[in-house]
Amino acid sequence: MKARVYVSLKEGIFDPQGSTVQQALSGLGFAGVSRVKAGKYFEIELEPAPSADVRQQLAKMCDQLLANPTIEQYRIELNAD
Amino acid sequence: MKARVYVSLKEGIFDPQGSTVQQALSGLGFAGVSRVKAGKYFEIELEPAPSADVRQQLAKMCDQLLANPTIEQYRIELNAD
Repeated sequence: MKARVYVSLKEGIFDPQGSTVQQALSGLGFAGVSRVKAGKYFEIELEPAPSADVRQQLAKMCDQLLANPTIEQYRIELNAD
Repeated sequence: MKARVYVSLKEGIFDPQGSTVQQALSGLGFAGVSRVKAGKYFEIELEPAPSADVRQQLAKMCDQLLANPTIEQYRIELNAD
């Protein structure tokens, strides 16, 4: 089973990496980029496919290691393959 | 219009961040994590909603700035909102 975890800064938290990318894109001539948010992305392979509480397990991984719950939010996506 | 861009290392490229996260998760007691791939995630807001070639435009952004095409691959997702 494969899980995808997306970690990004919460709304309102200053995102220097995102603004730098936005400025760089404008500098490269890409018009209309009004905002960029930067984040992290993890692809996690679980074997054997764990029990029903897999989403809860992944949320625990995020809270303990993958994200900083104070300033970051996360989104979990589960794939059967 | 909002676009999401996911950048990760190509298959076969050594991913030290991913293996470190995998080991850390095992160390924290999460069993069954067979592999972790780490990557980057960008949320890009485009305003005004650009013309039909928006996907091509985003691919150009990836090739020029967001990803290193030699070792990284990317995936683009478009949202109407």
